Amino acid sequence: MEDQQKESETIKVTPEDMYGELLRILIKNGFTEEKAIRCAEVFTENSIDGVYTHGVNRFSRFIQYIKDKFVMIDAEPVCVSRFGGLEQWDGNLGAGPLNAILATDRVVELAKVHGIGCVALANTNHWMRGGLYGWKAAKKGCIFISWTNTIANMPAWGAIDTKLGNNPLVFALPHNDEAIVLDMAMSQYSYGALELYTIKKQLLPVQGGYDKNGKLTNDPDAILASQRVLPIGYWKGAGLSLLLDILAAILSGGNAAGEVTRRGPESAVSQVFIAIDPSCLFNYKSIASAIQQILDDYHQSIPQNAGEKILYPGERVLETRKRNKEQGIPVSKSIWEGIVNL
Amino acid sequence: MEDQQKESETIKVTPEDMYGELLRILIKNGFTEEKAIRCAEVFTENSIDGVYTHGVNRFSRFIQYIKDKFVMIDAEPVCVSRFGGLEQWDGNLGAGPLNAILATDRVVELAKVHGIGCVALANTNHWMRGGLYGWKAAKKGCIFISWTNTIANMPAWGAIDTKLGNNPLVFALPHNDEAIVLDMAMSQYSYGALELYTIKKQLLPVQGGYDKNGKLTNDPDAILASQRVLPIGYWKGAGLSLLLDILAAILSGGNAAGEVTRRGPESAVSQVFIAIDPSCLFNYKSIASAIQQILDDYHQSIPQNAGEKILYPGERVLETRKRNKEQGIPVSKSIWEGIVNL
Repeated sequence: MEDQQKESETIKVTPEDMYGELLRILIKNGFTEEKAIRCAEVFTENSIDGVYTHGVNRFSRFIQYIKDKFVMIDAEPVCVSRFGGLEQWDGNLGAGPLNAILATDRVVELAKVHGIGCVALANTNHWMRGGLYGWKAAKKGCIFISWTNTIANMPAWGAIDTKLGNNPLVFALPHNDEAIVLDMAMSQYSYGALELYTIKKQLLPVQGGYDKNGKLTNDPDAILASQRVLPIGYWKGAGLSLLLDILAAILSGGNAAGEVTRRGPESAVSQVFIAIDPSCLFNYKSIASAIQQILDDYHQSIPQNAGEKILYPGERVLETRKRNKEQGIPVSKSIWEGIVNL
Repeated sequence: MEDQQKESETIKVTPEDMYGELLRILIKNGFTEEKAIRCAEVFTENSIDGVYTHGVNRFSRFIQYIKDKFVMIDAEPVCVSRFGGLEQWDGNLGAGPLNAILATDRVVELAKVHGIGCVALANTNHWMRGGLYGWKAAKKGCIFISWTNTIANMPAWGAIDTKLGNNPLVFALPHNDEAIVLDMAMSQYSYGALELYTIKKQLLPVQGGYDKNGKLTNDPDAILASQRVLPIGYWKGAGLSLLLDILAAILSGGNAAGEVTRRGPESAVSQVFIAIDPSCLFNYKSIASAIQQILDDYHQSIPQNAGEKILYPGERVLETRKRNKEQGIPVSKSIWEGIVNL
């Protein structure tokens, strides 16, 4: 992730400057101040955390989606059904980050009341970076499991055409006032990552898809040409992608990947948010030390390359966050110029 | 899975004969008739479904674990904490399949009351095949997400020693009086699968781990020698394995992989069972057709090899189940002789 901004001339933008600039543009494009603040925070926080592809680098596209009316700035999500700890919401095509924040806040409330809660969200838009909602739920003390479906961009196992989404899946839990957060798409590499390797004229570290002859390859150009990205774990990730898509669609009553794809640009996706409140567990007071013990054991792994640190999911984010807050967020000069002129 | 019984001389055993024989042995080893029936059903059903490694092939080891007192035949699971839809149970080292059936039945009940439920189970034993509980929950109308931790048998990403379990994860949902069931370990291949390829003197279809020089390989012998199996999706599956382990341990108040490993043979593992009752959803009546539409679209995938069928998770099981019920369950002659003599 951290290398994502190194491919071209970059400048450093302070978090405050980035937030202020994005806020200005969001308000200019019709958001209320409250919504603009929350959206600007999401794009800035994702950039601070080093997930530039779903932060500053994607902001101009987000504004274009507003102009194209794929993202409706006035939309308010509504609860369409509730039963115990389970609720269904309609996002009414509002901004993905706003709907996802609402769903996260709501599922945390449900977990506090019912021990475990689930919010399924239909007709929402790209949430940018799912991991952010994992951090948010964990900061509120909850365990969090969540996923989104996407436009079809990955073939079923054994197939050559793209019927499956890469459907990012998030697992998160609180730890020491911070969080352990796993945010993983069902494809081994995102299209954004493939394009970065192409620009850098580098091969992928591991096989990332098929060439046009159906042969597994490390060559990002060959994969971009075939559009056959590799699911994680081959048949396993393809299968999980299908299940996540079906569950997102039926739990929310919204679209599956096929319908999202037929609509054109990715819009009206379906998402699931599950939270568990560990404070009601009999062992709540010993959880922090139990996690620390597991992580200490994990960190004692013997690295293949001497001296290399074995990190847990989210651990690198803490370092990136600290550095970007202190030194400024690296942004491609052309991307920042494009934003400033919005 | 279906090839698992082809490596040596096999005989066909009818489901009734298998069930009767296993029942006899379980009762002989001290189980009550009721518990013996449920255990015999699990091993027989897994075998009917073609998951021989966690059915008939593993039965003798299960009996040995009883004799070694890793599996306690008199144990009864007890609920140690409940809050809303969330319950914690202690399996008291009882038979893994019995504890898992109880947890599945209980979490389905919780889902019917609260919309969504979670049962976390500490101090249980190997559940054999997690997918079975997915089938069972789906047959009762519920969506099901579940996982177990295991003994440490897989390295962290970038490491050479085994700190992680392969922690199988199950996603299941009802469909047309049957189910869609995904049951996947976090390692690309199980040790059992590697051993089968070794016996058959075949290379793995895809890379399955590292050789002793730290190079990715398709050679099962090299992987068995290094003990460095590959996580699905490389760093992704390793990360998910860690999160599943931490969550299983803290939600249940039970052991993480490290503690399971220090105990010796795999015992006293931790498991999580989550169920959602779709009958309370506003779109409940249209779910069946929504799923069918997704599967129809999926089945229209263009196969890489002309004429090959693109299957969804669990679809092949239905064929295997039908064949094994009609034609008998293929069992290695030596394995069956070992069982008959128990």
